[in-house]
Amino acid sequence: MTTNPDAAGPAQHDIDSPDNIARRDRGLAVLSRIDGHQGEAVIDSLADISPALGHHVAAFAFGDIYDRPGLDPCSRQLVTIGVLTALGGCEPQLKVHIGAALNVGLGREEITEAILHAAVYAGFPRALNATFVAREVFAGRDVH
Amino acid sequence: MTTNPDAAGPAQHDIDSPDNIARRDRGLAVLSRIDGHQGEAVIDSLADISPALGHHVAAFAFGDIYDRPGLDPCSRQLVTIGVLTALGGCEPQLKVHIGAALNVGLGREEITEAILHAAVYAGFPRALNATFVAREVFAGRDVH
Amino acid sequence: MTTNPDAAGPAQHDIDSPDNIARRDRGLAVLSRIDGHQGEAVIDSLADISPALGHHVAAFAFGDIYDRPGLDPCSRQLVTIGVLTALGGCEPQLKVHIGAALNVGLGREEITEAILHAAVYAGFPRALNATFVAREVFAGRDVH
Amino acid sequence: MTTNPDAAGPAQHDIDSPDNIARRDRGLAVLSRIDGHQGEAVIDSLADISPALGHHVAAFAFGDIYDRPGLDPCSRQLVTIGVLTALGGCEPQLKVHIGAALNVGLGREEITEAILHAAVYAGFPRALNATFVAREVFAGRDVH
Amino acid sequence: MTTNPDAAGPAQHDIDSPDNIARRDRGLAVLSRIDGHQGEAVIDSLADISPALGHHVAAFAFGDIYDRPGLDPCSRQLVTIGVLTALGGCEPQLKVHIGAALNVGLGREEITEAILHAAVYAGFPRALNATFVAREVFAGRDVH
Amino acid sequence: MTTNPDAAGPAQHDIDSPDNIARRDRGLAVLSRIDGHQGEAVIDSLADISPALGHHVAAFAFGDIYDRPGLDPCSRQLVTIGVLTALGGCEPQLKVHIGAALNVGLGREEITEAILHAAVYAGFPRALNATFVAREVFAGRDVH
Repeated sequence: MTTNPDAAGPAQHDIDSPDNIARRDRGLAVLSRIDGHQGEAVIDSLADISPALGHHVAAFAFGDIYDRPGLDPCSRQLVTIGVLTALGGCEPQLKVHIGAALNVGLGREEITEAILHAAVYAGFPRALNATFVAREVFAGRDVH
Repeated sequence: MTTNPDAAGPAQHDIDSPDNIARRDRGLAVLSRIDGHQGEAVIDSLADISPALGHHVAAFAFGDIYDRPGLDPCSRQLVTIGVLTALGGCEPQLKVHIGAALNVGLGREEITEAILHAAVYAGFPRALNATFVAREVFAGRDVH
Repeated sequence: MTTNPDAAGPAQHDIDSPDNIARRDRGLAVLSRIDGHQGEAVIDSLADISPALGHHVAAFAFGDIYDRPGLDPCSRQLVTIGVLTALGGCEPQLKVHIGAALNVGLGREEITEAILHAAVYAGFPRALNATFVAREVFAGRDVH
Repeated sequence: MTTNPDAAGPAQHDIDSPDNIARRDRGLAVLSRIDGHQGEAVIDSLADISPALGHHVAAFAFGDIYDRPGLDPCSRQLVTIGVLTALGGCEPQLKVHIGAALNVGLGREEITEAILHAAVYAGFPRALNATFVAREVFAGRDVH
Repeated sequence: MTTNPDAAGPAQHDIDSPDNIARRDRGLAVLSRIDGHQGEAVIDSLADISPALGHHVAAFAFGDIYDRPGLDPCSRQLVTIGVLTALGGCEPQLKVHIGAALNVGLGREEITEAILHAAVYAGFPRALNATFVAREVFAGRDVH
Repeated sequence: MTTNPDAAGPAQHDIDSPDNIARRDRGLAVLSRIDGHQGEAVIDSLADISPALGHHVAAFAFGDIYDRPGLDPCSRQLVTIGVLTALGGCEPQLKVHIGAALNVGLGREEITEAILHAAVYAGFPRALNATFVAREVFAGRDVH
């Protein structure tokens, strides 16, 4: 084992150390399981501009957090939809995560209901924007 | 029926019309079912300053929205926790809704896990603040 | 009266109950008075994806709140412009509400002045984005 | 005239140049007219930690912007209340500006109505927090 | 000197008074030094819709604040990138300020690293959006 | 090596696996170097309520990100102050990070200047709140 910080192994911040490649691969497997190819496309699109951001989205967000056993994937997507609706300006991420919500088993009406519920706390404009993203995602599924 | 806008009945904005009292009573029943006395205390505290805000929290947020069949109460609380964590500055509302989350059946670890999950999308400071609210709510339950 | 929650009438959450249709119709009348056809187009666009969100925008936002006598329409639009400028990411809603502001009697210079005023509290980027929406709305009026 | 940037006069960023003292004095006069002593107390409280922030609140926010003729003081306060309610976490500033709103002639019910109106766009938690600030301000006025 | 508020000179809010033209010219010189023509294009684009907003972006943001000696331009751009990433919905302003960051001497990797750093505090979606803006700015530089 | 996701070693989400303890220890060393005991106190305070949140603040935020070579600690703190000022409602985190900014070598006037600079983009209320936190941190240093 060379991850001991006092040892002479690769630094923790080296995203291409064997440990970090393993963490990233685990995260990419989780991401691909819930998002299919869409999430991976986001990571790939970061390769030229900020590979470290792509690494941490995969290794941390999906490998470390999403895969934790404390909450099932549908519950995670409900929280994510609540957060992204509230933040605003996250339409591209909402698009990925509404797709993921469908993939892990949430129904279309549960998704639009979650957004309507969010309107109470985050206001109608945020809910309207999120609902229009949902419509776009659902329409994309109907075509395929 | 006197709710026709063209008829001579009470105006829709009259929060003490029979229709609106009925809507508010329905909301207060939902609120009391999920929040016990805490939520009602918030409504009561508004009586002197903004009774209309209290009315609409009860009639709209709980009567019209929370009671809709499209999403079960645990799912609604997960969305709410996501939204309130993301918004920030909503510690008093988080306190009520983390209590409500426990009341409708979410476990303590599911609540802290939902907040950890929100950290990915809303950042760590928001998650830290929400987690400290959860600790306060859980501690209050241990005392009672 | 069948809105008593203990009675056997339609549930409060049934957006197509006679009471809720009446509330929605009242809201649509308010909306049409201040927004002309633009606001209604938003409601209509929700019919296929989230009719309940469309219902509550009309019945609650416009029927219950906008029509209250405590604040005149120009004042309501000033508050709305302040809120939407501050939230950010609400350009589509700003577009509707800047149009509504003109409809209820605010002048173009009052609208841009309100946005400049908001810059002090919400920062220049939010004010710039809102001002560019105002330009688009005003240009649309010049064409018609 | 020594404000020409190419001339040898004091730099524009020198907050104690004669021109900037004049701008600040003008702003302090506006601030004192609408806020009485409360606003000035905020500026004074910055003297030891960030005098430049205090200068720009007075000279820019009140001297340059608030005093512009394009919008009357009541309208400015309505926009400000909308922005501060929407931002959240600005309770100290809301306290000053709800006081200012009363000073320039808005009624208590107009203020709580403006906050209720903001709930539609910014959500109920933000409106609840702002309403509780209004209650505190109104209570302070009843005592004096 | 006619800036004394009690004197009969032009009002402080008159953005075309000699004093304000001098302040604006100073700001435009700062803006042009760090942004080249991009920033000026934003000011110019405001001439028809809100010349006062354009004036205050130049005179206040760049003339009064940016040019202060307390922080070097690279540090100012790091703060600006942090703020704009966190706010969200400020992609047009991020585009200008990432360009300015390159102009004042920050490297591309410092900029993407600053955005990655911001992800910890503001969440991954905000960092992703800011990184995609950086890619666009960098690509534009490669072409020229 | 047992971190291969297909191998039988501890799961990546097990925050007490040897790899994760090593990552956390590295992060705690970084945290202690820049924050002294304050940051560690935050992690410790999470032990009873959300040990995983504490783990990821240490292992991810400080071990993975803060320690990266692409940006020096002063630059990281400028970005952090920008983000936290803009978010609002993060006063406890600002307190820790303004202390850290002093620890890594930023001067008091650079910190208040960074917050003043943020006012342009995030508005004066956010800058006022952050400045009052700075005053509190500086006063605490004067006592010790």
